[in-house]
Amino acid sequence: MDERIKKQIDFSLEIDKEKNIFRQTHLTDHGRNENDAEHAWHMAIMSYLFREYANEDVDISKVMLMCLIHDIVEIDAGDTYAYDDEAIKSQKEREEKAKQRIFSILPDDQKEELMSLFDEFEENASPEARYAHAMDNLQPLILNNSNNGGDWKEHGIKADRVYERQSKTRLGSEKLYEITDRIIRENIKKGNL
Amino acid sequence: MDERIKKQIDFSLEIDKEKNIFRQTHLTDHGRNENDAEHAWHMAIMSYLFREYANEDVDISKVMLMCLIHDIVEIDAGDTYAYDDEAIKSQKEREEKAKQRIFSILPDDQKEELMSLFDEFEENASPEARYAHAMDNLQPLILNNSNNGGDWKEHGIKADRVYERQSKTRLGSEKLYEITDRIIRENIKKGNL
Repeated sequence: MDERIKKQIDFSLEIDKEKNIFRQTHLTDHGRNENDAEHAWHMAIMSYLFREYANEDVDISKVMLMCLIHDIVEIDAGDTYAYDDEAIKSQKEREEKAKQRIFSILPDDQKEELMSLFDEFEENASPEARYAHAMDNLQPLILNNSNNGGDWKEHGIKADRVYERQSKTRLGSEKLYEITDRIIRENIKKGNL
Repeated sequence: MDERIKKQIDFSLEIDKEKNIFRQTHLTDHGRNENDAEHAWHMAIMSYLFREYANEDVDISKVMLMCLIHDIVEIDAGDTYAYDDEAIKSQKEREEKAKQRIFSILPDDQKEELMSLFDEFEENASPEARYAHAMDNLQPLILNNSNNGGDWKEHGIKADRVYERQSKTRLGSEKLYEITDRIIRENIKKGNL
């Protein structure tokens, strides 16, 4: 087997491990915790469905791919819960190391391409990255809302923390931020936050 | 909330159920069974990585979306194992009914668009559909191969059935069919098939 395709297959097998990285979010109907691969799949489909609400024109192919790969680093770095202040301190360093190891399995051109796409997402400095971040927030929000705010209640999260995190959604989509704001208010009213 | 976005959110919550539809394929390292959402995520990334091997020019954005949504019907219809002849007889009818119910949750324009994309995949009548089918075959093949053919051994599958199924890969990618053929031969040699 030639070297290039061998590397591509090795990478494909490596990312299988993302299916074992579990998040704090639960599936609808108070199901089990969601894993990173499921979250990325869900975000990618939602990014396509909701693209009419992006603040800026986006290359939807780039957005979908960004959604699909944005958590690959968590294979080594683990999932960092959005409200875990201690873990967030070391997140960047852990994920940078993971990025180097995992993407280096690919042929050089694809390594550079995917690392650069991952960096673009992290830096939130393009229309696609801003819109993809809106999805990264909206997807767990609607799951958690469908579970009557169970994930927030479990961790005793306060409304101001949720607003702080969800503020990024506004940069990608004003319209989806309106929906977000409405969902948060309803959960405050119900005593879930 | 306006009717359109409500439908889009309802559909997004509905497809969450795909994470509970389990396949016969196991994760690498003899892990648990894989679910449909994980399979679709994996296929979509692989379709991007391997696009240079597609027989024909493909719109990769369309291929990725096709991969992401191709198993949504299994929320109602269940997973039909590729080597279960009895279940295959009723598969089309079950999936057609599921397609109507699930995609009808969306606004009409998106319902039509996704149903049409699903049909295109099923009919295997476009470059994108042929290439997406190559991914639908290759992804479980490399997982199963990484597990020393465990999924074939568990079900006592014979090599000619595997060749029959994998023959579709050739329509989408001659190069990936070469790799497929090599993997099958190695597994025959090892007594896994």
